[in-house]
Amino acid sequence: MSNPRSFDYANRIDRLRDIMGQQGIDLVMLSVGSDLPYFTGYEAMPSERLTMLLVDRVSDPSLFVPQLEGPRVAPGPFDIVSWSEAENPVSLVAEKVGGARRIAVGDHTWSAFLVALQAELPKAEWTVASELTRGLRIRKEPGEIASLRAAAEAADRVLARVPGEVRFSGRTEHQIARDFSEMTLDEGHDMASFAIVASGPNGASPHHEPGDRIVQKGDLVVCDFGGRVDGYHSDVTRTFSVGPPTAEQVEVHHVVAKANASGRAAARPGVPCQEIDRAARSVIEDAGYGRFFIHRTGHGIGLEVHEHPYLVEGNDITLESGMSFSVEPGIYLPDRLGVRIEDIVTTVDDGVDELNRADRGLVEVG
Amino acid sequence: MSNPRSFDYANRIDRLRDIMGQQGIDLVMLSVGSDLPYFTGYEAMPSERLTMLLVDRVSDPSLFVPQLEGPRVAPGPFDIVSWSEAENPVSLVAEKVGGARRIAVGDHTWSAFLVALQAELPKAEWTVASELTRGLRIRKEPGEIASLRAAAEAADRVLARVPGEVRFSGRTEHQIARDFSEMTLDEGHDMASFAIVASGPNGASPHHEPGDRIVQKGDLVVCDFGGRVDGYHSDVTRTFSVGPPTAEQVEVHHVVAKANASGRAAARPGVPCQEIDRAARSVIEDAGYGRFFIHRTGHGIGLEVHEHPYLVEGNDITLESGMSFSVEPGIYLPDRLGVRIEDIVTTVDDGVDELNRADRGLVEVG
Repeated sequence: MSNPRSFDYANRIDRLRDIMGQQGIDLVMLSVGSDLPYFTGYEAMPSERLTMLLVDRVSDPSLFVPQLEGPRVAPGPFDIVSWSEAENPVSLVAEKVGGARRIAVGDHTWSAFLVALQAELPKAEWTVASELTRGLRIRKEPGEIASLRAAAEAADRVLARVPGEVRFSGRTEHQIARDFSEMTLDEGHDMASFAIVASGPNGASPHHEPGDRIVQKGDLVVCDFGGRVDGYHSDVTRTFSVGPPTAEQVEVHHVVAKANASGRAAARPGVPCQEIDRAARSVIEDAGYGRFFIHRTGHGIGLEVHEHPYLVEGNDITLESGMSFSVEPGIYLPDRLGVRIEDIVTTVDDGVDELNRADRGLVEVG
Repeated sequence: MSNPRSFDYANRIDRLRDIMGQQGIDLVMLSVGSDLPYFTGYEAMPSERLTMLLVDRVSDPSLFVPQLEGPRVAPGPFDIVSWSEAENPVSLVAEKVGGARRIAVGDHTWSAFLVALQAELPKAEWTVASELTRGLRIRKEPGEIASLRAAAEAADRVLARVPGEVRFSGRTEHQIARDFSEMTLDEGHDMASFAIVASGPNGASPHHEPGDRIVQKGDLVVCDFGGRVDGYHSDVTRTFSVGPPTAEQVEVHHVVAKANASGRAAARPGVPCQEIDRAARSVIEDAGYGRFFIHRTGHGIGLEVHEHPYLVEGNDITLESGMSFSVEPGIYLPDRLGVRIEDIVTTVDDGVDELNRADRGLVEVG
């Protein structure tokens, strides 16, 4: 949960205030989610105990924290207001808000807190913080890219170990997922965030939860996993073949690999996000599998696994240097199989820097 | 994330509708959080892709899910509405809401969705779903208690292994926490939710995050961990002594153990929640450590680690049979040490059923 790499939080808060001025926002209120650590280095525990940072245009920001979590907060460019178990933190926060009228609340803030704040602040007008913060967070600083690279490299080291160390055949998805989580920690992540292992027909469910199905020879297995390094995420997917693949499996995998390469090749500064989606999707459509690619091509990544920019039809935001995101086309044949290949890239001047470089071929496992 | 134990969801929805009638609520809207699985068996992934259940007083409930997550939903007493990546789910949901006026939104729903819904539904009046659902969820059904018991027993098996298998001295908190997480899975949890390992002076931070401090002879180490079985949580804390404890360590531990026993002994149907807090706290106050017990005595537990009822001063809700909660007094001496002892109990006719029974003494480890 910590972010040992230190950033210039005061500078980030100054830049946030510039945007608040441009958008006419009086106050930003951040709770759980990644905006809070972006501006303070402190991540709130998701909890019925309210943590909330208030940033107005002039005063020192105030961070309200439950008394028992006070010792977790490292000092920063904000005042710490500790509240005890017998106090009502919503009332304390509302009192501090005073007459602020136009307020942006952190996107992931629990609605229970927002509803309570709205009752105490009936004149306030509410918008969401990502309308202000995405403009900062969407372009990564060099220190952020360094952490994303470290995470991606750790994930690649996991993938390199798979053929030699992970037995698939005869074991459950759940057991294999646990291997991935342990290797995710072994290879230097601070935390293992998730591990999807979707075998055979389960591969057709993009977010399948690993279960008791026993993997068999002849299965394709979609393995999508990630963890955190210094607060920044890895997220990579490879699809393995348990024993020799069939001609159809090779064909589907080949189409997805080509779509992945096409998406990566299309990405460079000045290109609208939706063009990356089109570049990957057209490969799959041309091969006749268009209706089986049932999700967008990718998502930004950073302090969150999914953040701006989204590589999806309809998003005409143009890529700029320093944007980091996934390229992850897939084909999902219901009740039969799935294939997905996912890499993280960062936009640089003449294209992308590939943070993941693990083998993208159809690797056979035992 | 799954909940294989099946419950009578239709009956739970009927009971929710009774409460909606009593409170004059037209519509309940549930997203991430535990109310959704309580009424459907389905748990939404925390995501920028909206999942939302709409329950009104008469029609079949509608569950809006992202298309790619559709395969994860088991059929139940609700219609499934799948939305694709090119659609705006908030608009789809708002259209379905129609003229509903008094709406209760799930407590953990992301504020980004609530703010967007409020913009589309300017006449709606909002409250939070827990105002309705807590009356159901606070008393556990026998099937729920069975899962809580299975989780608690699995956690107790972890604790039983600690003295023989876990080396403390010379290793980091982070390494020891990983041992706890692995044993949590080994002993039958579907998922390891958290592991606090707070050694020596770090023990004074109740929610300390395991770090690089190397544990030494003479430390007390607060170990607070838990996982999930069929969606229901364990949450238990023991404080170990690395080598022989000092007289002060023995004394502080003794006071906390006595407070824990006093809290458990005070719990029975008809007793207000705050009386449990007072029973535990008075032991610590009488021993002169009152100002070092900086949190409430406990919290309800079920589909969430923390839920109603809360054992805290000011909460005069009376305990009833079937309520499950923690009793977890602690003493935190800043920069020096911490001790916490936590057990889960369920209220029964004549007192409590102790779900955790692991040794509460000051166990020495190597």
